[in-house]
Amino acid sequence: MLVLDLTRVLAGPYCTMVLADLGARVIKIEPPGVGDDSRHIGPFLKGKSAYFMSINRGKESIALDLKGPADRAIFERLLGVADVLVENYRGGTMEKLGYGWDDLHPRFPRLIYAAASGFGHTGPYRTRAAYDMVVQGMGGIMSLTGHPGSPPTRVGTSVGDITAGLFTAIGINAALVERARTGVGRKVDVAMLDCQVAILENAIARYVSTGQVPGPLGARHPSITPFEAFRTADGWMIIAAGNDGLFRKLADALGRPDLAADPLFASNELRTRNAAALKTEIEQALASAGTAHWLEVVDAAGVPCGPINDVAQALADPQVATRNMVVTADDPEIGPLRMAGNPIKLSGVTDPPTRRPAPALDADRAAILAELGLA
Amino acid sequence: MLVLDLTRVLAGPYCTMVLADLGARVIKIEPPGVGDDSRHIGPFLKGKSAYFMSINRGKESIALDLKGPADRAIFERLLGVADVLVENYRGGTMEKLGYGWDDLHPRFPRLIYAAASGFGHTGPYRTRAAYDMVVQGMGGIMSLTGHPGSPPTRVGTSVGDITAGLFTAIGINAALVERARTGVGRKVDVAMLDCQVAILENAIARYVSTGQVPGPLGARHPSITPFEAFRTADGWMIIAAGNDGLFRKLADALGRPDLAADPLFASNELRTRNAAALKTEIEQALASAGTAHWLEVVDAAGVPCGPINDVAQALADPQVATRNMVVTADDPEIGPLRMAGNPIKLSGVTDPPTRRPAPALDADRAAILAELGLA
Repeated sequence: MLVLDLTRVLAGPYCTMVLADLGARVIKIEPPGVGDDSRHIGPFLKGKSAYFMSINRGKESIALDLKGPADRAIFERLLGVADVLVENYRGGTMEKLGYGWDDLHPRFPRLIYAAASGFGHTGPYRTRAAYDMVVQGMGGIMSLTGHPGSPPTRVGTSVGDITAGLFTAIGINAALVERARTGVGRKVDVAMLDCQVAILENAIARYVSTGQVPGPLGARHPSITPFEAFRTADGWMIIAAGNDGLFRKLADALGRPDLAADPLFASNELRTRNAAALKTEIEQALASAGTAHWLEVVDAAGVPCGPINDVAQALADPQVATRNMVVTADDPEIGPLRMAGNPIKLSGVTDPPTRRPAPALDADRAAILAELGLA
Repeated sequence: MLVLDLTRVLAGPYCTMVLADLGARVIKIEPPGVGDDSRHIGPFLKGKSAYFMSINRGKESIALDLKGPADRAIFERLLGVADVLVENYRGGTMEKLGYGWDDLHPRFPRLIYAAASGFGHTGPYRTRAAYDMVVQGMGGIMSLTGHPGSPPTRVGTSVGDITAGLFTAIGINAALVERARTGVGRKVDVAMLDCQVAILENAIARYVSTGQVPGPLGARHPSITPFEAFRTADGWMIIAAGNDGLFRKLADALGRPDLAADPLFASNELRTRNAAALKTEIEQALASAGTAHWLEVVDAAGVPCGPINDVAQALADPQVATRNMVVTADDPEIGPLRMAGNPIKLSGVTDPPTRRPAPALDADRAAILAELGLA
């Protein structure tokens, strides 16, 4: 599986990282001189971007000027042997280069063309650029994130980019499944803004059912209670008692079986309506001991719960380690760099703890040209 | 493509919704009597869960007791004709039923078995249950979300479930691509906690590069500046000037070309180091007019920007409408229910504005049994 990757920064590179982790060969095609924008976004180690390196591990790189005839000829040779082309320019850019879907599909009918853009290739915003922050703001997720009265709150990672990368990867794989049957490729057109709408789930259901516009809910689920961060004697913990049976177990574990018998809290709907009162009761019980104690007790009762980990704690969790979710890539200059692993575990497929590093700009030019018979 | 769907609530049902949107036939297999837990999670319309309906549109339903011999026989007949089985029980549940991968793969070698669980099927937590809140807490994203000093902040939608659903869908499609070549299915084992680690991206890069544990950053990007929510005369707006060229355009648009010439702000790295000072300057400029004015001016300058929409505003956006990102399903009792559309737009594939509604519990039993010759 050969993927040509014209993408920059995050949504597209995240998509092609997922494909590379699944075994695809990914050739990054970068603008000569500067390369992918994210080579210039920190944090840096010995002048190299750790951010770039973590999202581009295991890929190859060739620098091509898609406005120059010599490099265009190389690009077109690559198109002739590729399965997938991925790009995340703003809409219209590929058409200006003469490489839009309508140009490519007749010449390369098997090629799957995937575009991950801010707003998609149709509609009034089709030529506008966007970044993660813009679609987090426009798509509604920021209106649901944070505490009532707090200033706007961004989701702490780039879910605008990442969900677009994931939906694009799904679309590419779906097109590959179909192509195995038909021999013909499709265009996959994914918009970051669309993906933000697609992940609003419960918030849309609440709005269209009640007409009330959902606001930020702090640290609790809007429709399931108790399902929230609770204060203990020395910090915080998550408790997620998603149904009546779990709520009874929780009440017992807290030494408060009366809560499960209280008509105020007799169903999830009632618990949600009376969430503030229930929180007060639960936090009164939790105040008698610290988080470590309560995690043990609540977990032993079979109720889903957990700590609120920072990034260091999350990476050090024994489950995360066992699942090989922290891998390293050995960069020739920096040495082993730790980064997130691949969460798609496939039976019979190796999941190596070490990956090939991200390429230097244009590092694979000679080898790629030789393969194409152009060296 | 026939998908058997044993999943409940969100991660699994979201995955199979994506597959259904791509054209798969999805048969939900639900416990008799109660059905999917999310049938009992609000908001409700005429006693039916709008939440359940929005995630399960276009699926069929049959109620099977997987502990009873008659229904087990039906289930096994279905396994014989299915392409994919998806479940999101806690680890070990399918083995207790006699339907673990080691049981199924020898009998149904073409079947792809996908498990989306809280912690995955290996490691010390493999039999523990989790919900979205638990993995949002454990996986680190909550430590990055919110304002410094604020209480813990949940991401406003269930990214713990949704990202696991998306990675599972990618894994299933990848296994289908491979099966087209080999004829053999694989097990796809996706853990919600793993997916949370997989989306930390920049935060891991910062931590492993600097040793400093990243904290919440309010509404700004950690490594790109200006890339944040800014106050205007009458509200807020997002400005995302992701590189030097965009920053110069922004400075001009704000009537402050001096900012682009200021050595404090000469590169993205310097702007990030001096983010607070830059924010003050930008908000001084923005204070002279309201959000609507500045959106027009900054957009006209070619700098990515946008409003912070609530859910109602997001759904009403003309781009969202043009992209068919709000679809309806006509429920026989409730009438048309609005919900998010499919963000994977494929050339030549219809993207209908109306979808089949979610099924009533066991609604398709007779038809499915007849198809299997069991009626």
